[in-house]
Amino acid sequence: MQPTYDEEKLARLMEEAGVDLILAHTPHNMRYLTGGYYFHFRERVAAIGPSQYLPFVGIPKKNPENAFQVAWRVEAAPRNEVDTWIPDVIYTKARGTVGASETAAEAIRKRGLDEGTIAVERAFMPVDAMETLGRELRAARFVDSLGILEELRAVKREDELEIFRRAARADSEAIQAGFQEGARGVTTRRIEQRVEEEMVRRGLHFHYAFTAAGPGMRREPSDKIWERGEILHIDAGGSEAGYMSDICRMGVRGEPSALAEELRKACLHAVDACRGAIRAGASCASVHERGHQAFADTGFADMGIFEVHGIGMVQQELPRFGPEVERALEAGMVVSVECDIRHAQVGHVKIEDAVAVTEDGCEGLGDLGRDSWACID
Amino acid sequence: MQPTYDEEKLARLMEEAGVDLILAHTPHNMRYLTGGYYFHFRERVAAIGPSQYLPFVGIPKKNPENAFQVAWRVEAAPRNEVDTWIPDVIYTKARGTVGASETAAEAIRKRGLDEGTIAVERAFMPVDAMETLGRELRAARFVDSLGILEELRAVKREDELEIFRRAARADSEAIQAGFQEGARGVTTRRIEQRVEEEMVRRGLHFHYAFTAAGPGMRREPSDKIWERGEILHIDAGGSEAGYMSDICRMGVRGEPSALAEELRKACLHAVDACRGAIRAGASCASVHERGHQAFADTGFADMGIFEVHGIGMVQQELPRFGPEVERALEAGMVVSVECDIRHAQVGHVKIEDAVAVTEDGCEGLGDLGRDSWACID
Repeated sequence: MQPTYDEEKLARLMEEAGVDLILAHTPHNMRYLTGGYYFHFRERVAAIGPSQYLPFVGIPKKNPENAFQVAWRVEAAPRNEVDTWIPDVIYTKARGTVGASETAAEAIRKRGLDEGTIAVERAFMPVDAMETLGRELRAARFVDSLGILEELRAVKREDELEIFRRAARADSEAIQAGFQEGARGVTTRRIEQRVEEEMVRRGLHFHYAFTAAGPGMRREPSDKIWERGEILHIDAGGSEAGYMSDICRMGVRGEPSALAEELRKACLHAVDACRGAIRAGASCASVHERGHQAFADTGFADMGIFEVHGIGMVQQELPRFGPEVERALEAGMVVSVECDIRHAQVGHVKIEDAVAVTEDGCEGLGDLGRDSWACID
Repeated sequence: MQPTYDEEKLARLMEEAGVDLILAHTPHNMRYLTGGYYFHFRERVAAIGPSQYLPFVGIPKKNPENAFQVAWRVEAAPRNEVDTWIPDVIYTKARGTVGASETAAEAIRKRGLDEGTIAVERAFMPVDAMETLGRELRAARFVDSLGILEELRAVKREDELEIFRRAARADSEAIQAGFQEGARGVTTRRIEQRVEEEMVRRGLHFHYAFTAAGPGMRREPSDKIWERGEILHIDAGGSEAGYMSDICRMGVRGEPSALAEELRKACLHAVDACRGAIRAGASCASVHERGHQAFADTGFADMGIFEVHGIGMVQQELPRFGPEVERALEAGMVVSVECDIRHAQVGHVKIEDAVAVTEDGCEGLGDLGRDSWACID
C-alpha cells in the first residue's frame, strides 16, 4: 500500500524545514497520515488510568517505507482491520504517555534518526512524553510540526471532499430537525439534543450545537424555552472520519419581524459576496476584503463579526485569511464563511456556510436552509 | 459559594506533597474542581486553529478564596450561567495554549506564588504551555498533580453517586437496545450506532461500544453481521457531566450452546465473588484476591482476564487493586469489576459491572441484563 497523502509535497516541506522525521500523535494528524486510522476506543476521551492514550506515527523524510506506528496491544485487531500503509506497527508494553514515548524513541534509534531533527506537535505533546523523548534521544533536535502538517492537509483530495459533502449535508439536515423540534415549545438544551440525535443517526460524531434563542445573546444550550415570536440560530458542528462540518442556520417561531429579516439579509449579503469572490487563484486578502466590504455596506458591521477561515480535520485551519495574506486559493481547499449580527431587539442572527474551492468558483457544502428562515409554528 | 470538593482533604494533600498551587486543565479535573463546569463548545474536540483550547483552574493551598480560572472570552456567557464558586475568572486575549499559559502565569504572579511549588497535570500539559509557564515563572518549581487530584476524587459524594446511577442505568438500557437492533440481522457497526443513539436520547455522552460477535475475537464495530447462533458482547461506555459508565453485557441470537452458557456463568461467578468481597474496610488486595481465586476455580482463567479497578471521571482511577494493595475501601468509592473469556469455539464472553462501595457491601449500578443472556430471535 501507498501513503494517501501527497508524498512529494511532504518530502519538499520536510526538506525546506530541515526536518528528518515527522512524529505526530493528535487524532487529526494520525488520521491524515495513516490514511484514516484512529483507535475507536480512545476517539472521544483520551484520559485513562493515571495517564492518557498516546499513539504515534513516525515518517522519515523521503523514506515512508521506514515509517512506523506506536499502538496499544489491544489495538492489534482494529489496526489490522483498517490495513493502513504503515509498514511497521509497534505495540507498547506500558499504556500511557511515557511508555509510548519510550517505544517511539526506540523506533527512532533503530532507524538511525536519533541525531536528527524531529518535528512534534508542540501544542498537544504532553510534557512527560516530551521529556522522555528528550532523555532517550539526547542528540536529537526537536521542532514544531505544525507548519508542515497544516500545509500538507490544506488542499483536499476528491475522496476527502466527498466526506465533506456528506458531513455538511448531514449537519444541515440535523439543524433543520432541531428547528422542527422547537415547534413543541422545548428548551434549547432539548433542541441541542435533537441535533445530536440527528447527527448520530446520519453517522456523524456530534461536537457541539450553539442555540441562541430570542433577543438575548446566550448561545449555549440551557433551560431557556424557544418561545413564539423569537428567532433561533443553530450553529452546529460534527465530523465524519475526522472531517469537520460547521454550519449555522436561522429559524423563527412564527414570522420574522421586518428588522429580523433585514439583519438576516445583511448576513446573507456578506456571506454571498465573499462566496462570490472565492475561486482558485483568488488571493486570501481579496476574499477577506470582499466579505468585510460587503458587511460594512450593510451598515450593521459594528454590531457583528465577519470571518472566513479554512476548515478540515481541524476547525479553523489553512487557508487563513486577512488583509495581508497574498496566498492564492487552490481548488480543493475547504472554506468556512460566517457572519453574525447581535441586535438587542432581535437577538443573535448568524449564517455560516462551508464551500469547496473550485477552478472557477466554489461549491456549497450543506447549503440546505441557508437562503431562508426555518419558520416554525 | 463554596467549593464542592473536600476543602480540608485538598489542603492536607497539598501540605503533604509540599504544593502551593494546583494548576489543573483537563476536562475531568476542571469539572471536578470548579464543581461541574467545562466549556461545552470544546468538550468533544480540543483542537482549533493552530493550537487547542486550554483552560486552567488554579487553587492556592488553604486559600480557595484566591482561586482563579483562565477562560476564553466567548466563554463569558456559559461560565456565568453555571455560576461556579471560582471567585476570579480571567479571559485570555489570545486563544491557544501559549496565551492561556501567559494569562495563568500572570494570575500566579499576582498571588505571590511565582516562587512556589506548582502542581500541573504532566501527562496532559502541552509542551509549549509548560515552556511558557517555566519562562514566565522562573523561580517556581513544577511537580505533578496526579497523586493529589486522584486522591481528592477517590471517594464520591452522594450527588456524584446519583449521577453514576443515572449514567449506568442509561448505559445498560442502551446496551439492551443494541441487542434488540441485532434482531434485524444488522452489522456490529449498526449495533454500535444504535447504542450511541440510545445513550444520546438518555442524555449521555457516548464514548465507545465494543461489539464482539460470533466465535471470532474482533471487538471493534465493523461490517460483520451478527448472525443467528452467534453470541455478542456489547461493552459500552458513556458519561453524564463527566462521570463515566462502563458496562458489558451478553446477548445471543437464538439460544446459547451449553458451552457458551458455561463460560458466561464462569464470568458471572468471578464477578459475583468479587462483588461479594467489596465493602467499606475491605482491603483492595482481598477484593482482588477473591475475584482472581473465583475465576481460577472455574478452570477458564487461562483463557481470559479478570480485572477490578476504580472508575469515576477517568476510566480506571483510584482505588487501584492488586495483591500488594493494602489500602481499605471506603464507602462512596465506585468500582468496576470485569471478567472475560476468549474461547475459539464460542467467542468473546465478557461481563463488566459497576458498583458503589457501601458500609456493609456494595450497590450495583446499571445491573440490568447482567444475570442472563439477551436472547434475540
